[in-house]
Amino acid sequence: MKIIKNIEEMKIQVNLWKKEDSSIGLVPTMGFLHEGHESLIKRAVSENEHVVVYVFVNPLQFGPKEDFAAYPRDLDKDSELCARNNADVLFAPEASELYDKDAATFVNVERLTEGLCGAKRPGHFQGVCTVLTKFFNIVKPDRAYFGEKDAQQLAVVKRMARDLNFDTQIIGCPIVREKDGLAKSSRNTYLSPEERTAALVLFRSLMHAKEYILSNDNVTVQEIKSLITMEIMKEPLARIDYVEIVEGENLKEAQEMRGPLLIALAVFIGRTRLIDNISIEI
Amino acid sequence: MKIIKNIEEMKIQVNLWKKEDSSIGLVPTMGFLHEGHESLIKRAVSENEHVVVYVFVNPLQFGPKEDFAAYPRDLDKDSELCARNNADVLFAPEASELYDKDAATFVNVERLTEGLCGAKRPGHFQGVCTVLTKFFNIVKPDRAYFGEKDAQQLAVVKRMARDLNFDTQIIGCPIVREKDGLAKSSRNTYLSPEERTAALVLFRSLMHAKEYILSNDNVTVQEIKSLITMEIMKEPLARIDYVEIVEGENLKEAQEMRGPLLIALAVFIGRTRLIDNISIEI
Repeated sequence: MKIIKNIEEMKIQVNLWKKEDSSIGLVPTMGFLHEGHESLIKRAVSENEHVVVYVFVNPLQFGPKEDFAAYPRDLDKDSELCARNNADVLFAPEASELYDKDAATFVNVERLTEGLCGAKRPGHFQGVCTVLTKFFNIVKPDRAYFGEKDAQQLAVVKRMARDLNFDTQIIGCPIVREKDGLAKSSRNTYLSPEERTAALVLFRSLMHAKEYILSNDNVTVQEIKSLITMEIMKEPLARIDYVEIVEGENLKEAQEMRGPLLIALAVFIGRTRLIDNISIEI
Repeated sequence: MKIIKNIEEMKIQVNLWKKEDSSIGLVPTMGFLHEGHESLIKRAVSENEHVVVYVFVNPLQFGPKEDFAAYPRDLDKDSELCARNNADVLFAPEASELYDKDAATFVNVERLTEGLCGAKRPGHFQGVCTVLTKFFNIVKPDRAYFGEKDAQQLAVVKRMARDLNFDTQIIGCPIVREKDGLAKSSRNTYLSPEERTAALVLFRSLMHAKEYILSNDNVTVQEIKSLITMEIMKEPLARIDYVEIVEGENLKEAQEMRGPLLIALAVFIGRTRLIDNISIEI
């Protein structure tokens, strides 16, 4: 496996592959790779002749009070994981090369980014969409793989790829969880042992909501939101950022519990902000 | 020459060319082609193995009170001009195919778009950048050709292509003028005979400013702006939209008459808004 740190070198590699007419899969990441990322890489390897995993902690998608500087980094371990899973290239450019000092161009997806994490993290999705446009233009992937844990990101990126006529198919992959149900996340490393236990409340409250929906008729959006909210409030280390139920594709607030729905949470466990979600079809 | 009206068909053609490893030149236009466009097409044909001229009156770059509906259209004549100049494809997609009803993605270039036409036409450059991103992704040009008449557009598109890592070289081509100096523009067809004569004031005032700069030492920005303003004000059919002197690359308001500068005008002649500019290096 090659490690490429330079944009021009990446473009040369991509052009060689394009000349052979071989397919390229891209797995965009911020590094500190875990089994969630690994599942994306495996899927990409199974569906494409060549796979690029990029590792880039994108300053543009962090707010001024967020954890950009603290975000965990371990390129050696990431590189082992990518090699073990037969990725062709680990692409890790420097922010100083990717963003010129006078960079002034930004990609925005409106509406879809207004609720959920978009409401809580202003500028976050502009950062995500701008950097992905850049990486799509550099790597020219046939397919790009995203985890369903960032459900809003997945919906936003699908819309962006369609709207801007990218030749890239956006593929969502199921959330990978620890044995006890906690969604895998690089941010889980921030958690103390007590917080790690408390963090289970995210998935547990979602599972209880699901059971309740499946075993009761005519439940309302407000009932389900309250059920989840109450359960999380009982956990002293948890502080709710949002509990939302939205329509599957356009992410509009659900008015009733009908159709394909997404139940999405963001919860602070101590100082660590975790997200989780489930999709249900009623 | 082929006329392609469908995005998928255009992509298939582009992929065939890419497989032969041949270069693609793109000439983006809103149609009603004149000798200005023709000069771009000739240059594109001389520098690329294949040339696509697109004709698309982009609703996104017109304000609600602007001339979108009235904008002149003549695809038959455009097609003759393209064929005569050996373009390979005239690409003329429908707005309904290019923009999905729930399209929500927009490309913005900040700062560079704040002055000049950007200040007078809110949303205009967002429309330009968004549609160009789409066409760049569809046509994948090695080079794209723009007239220097839209000097701000050229600067904005250069910045966008660099910032988003497009593999497209942005090439500016000199303004083509009528014999009496009026810059060629599809909007010149709006002018009555009296207005056509009055419209000469744009270029004339720029030429007088240039003479004054070349024959006087230590002129100030305000002197030159006043000189131009006074000359245009003497023309009863003209109404100034802006007279600006900005730095060449970043389009910041010039503080002194030094370095590469752009003197740019927008003037209403009757109801028709015309633009013109000259570059000077002092």
